[in-house]
Amino acid sequence: MNVMQASERRARKTELKREAILRSAAGAFRRKGYHGTSMEDISEQLLMTKGSLYYYFADKEEILFACHDFSLDRVLDRMQEVIEAEKDSNAADRLGALIQGLVDVMIDDLQGSALALDFTALKEELLEKIIAKRDKFERGMRAVISDGVKSREFRNVDPKLATFAILGAINWISKWYRPDGTFKAADIGRMYSDLFVKGLSKGDLPNVGK
Amino acid sequence: MNVMQASERRARKTELKREAILRSAAGAFRRKGYHGTSMEDISEQLLMTKGSLYYYFADKEEILFACHDFSLDRVLDRMQEVIEAEKDSNAADRLGALIQGLVDVMIDDLQGSALALDFTALKEELLEKIIAKRDKFERGMRAVISDGVKSREFRNVDPKLATFAILGAINWISKWYRPDGTFKAADIGRMYSDLFVKGLSKGDLPNVGK
Repeated sequence: MNVMQASERRARKTELKREAILRSAAGAFRRKGYHGTSMEDISEQLLMTKGSLYYYFADKEEILFACHDFSLDRVLDRMQEVIEAEKDSNAADRLGALIQGLVDVMIDDLQGSALALDFTALKEELLEKIIAKRDKFERGMRAVISDGVKSREFRNVDPKLATFAILGAINWISKWYRPDGTFKAADIGRMYSDLFVKGLSKGDLPNVGK
Repeated sequence: MNVMQASERRARKTELKREAILRSAAGAFRRKGYHGTSMEDISEQLLMTKGSLYYYFADKEEILFACHDFSLDRVLDRMQEVIEAEKDSNAADRLGALIQGLVDVMIDDLQGSALALDFTALKEELLEKIIAKRDKFERGMRAVISDGVKSREFRNVDPKLATFAILGAINWISKWYRPDGTFKAADIGRMYSDLFVKGLSKGDLPNVGK
């Protein structure tokens, strides 16, 4: 193994460790709240010492920031994929794919909880970065809904209010979803996509509804 | 004024004071989290001493419990009203009225935040009371959706999953709603009602959509 391979392997290992910390932290924040969670709570669950946790993150605030940042990057990546894959599709299909993609990220990444965590505890500078990414995603969804209203596929709804409704329903998944429960990610994604696309559409679409 | 009137007036005054405390506390819990909020935070905002706060509530946990209990009672009252007023209506109209009623309560009572607060900090015995009331409301909404599925007004959706989607969208209102913002309670209630009723319905309903 040459030097480059070793250094790449080390970087990948660090990345995986950081992700494991974020998963553990997101779960703890959800259960005990950000203020109620200590660095010990996070490290204990990972069978790490508090000291080794500080090797990866300077403090709890940096972890909260990284939780959001990580999940928002996944969500924005997914949005980009949908926009590219569906660029010739109608607004209904684009919105449906976007909703299914977001449900996937909510459920699979960081136990689905990071996007629903309260991030107001972050200091101004970090808060602004998170809000900028969240706004980028919200604008992306609003744009798809606006397109559908303009093309008369959708009813004359306020795209901002419709986006709030959709994101609320999806963010709330983290409050009730259990990996061993009745509902699987794909079922939830499909059901939410049908529900909102049909709810916004003017007529009955042949490709939604059962 | 006789003795009875004086005692009634006193009871009413205590009730109003308790409600003011719950409103203030719900706002503080939302901003700083339950664990991050102290009894001082709650009393200071009301220009009360911490001592007089303890006259109304034994501790912070009792306040968190009362926040939920108060809002859930309003929601259950509203559900009862809707069920009585709309008992001869179809499932779509009943669900629409239920959604509008719930949006009203979310926005008007306790700054809309109590129902979306995390109540897992409550001890077993209080938690069970809250969960029982919340389940009663959820069952009420599920029953309306089930009725609609059985009568073939609604598509063949899972009523539990549909209820989660609707309650998620409504609970999330507390995260973005501002009393001085663009959207008024009645507009939000109407929009959410149309969105979900249409989203669940088999065909186009003449009384929804714009």
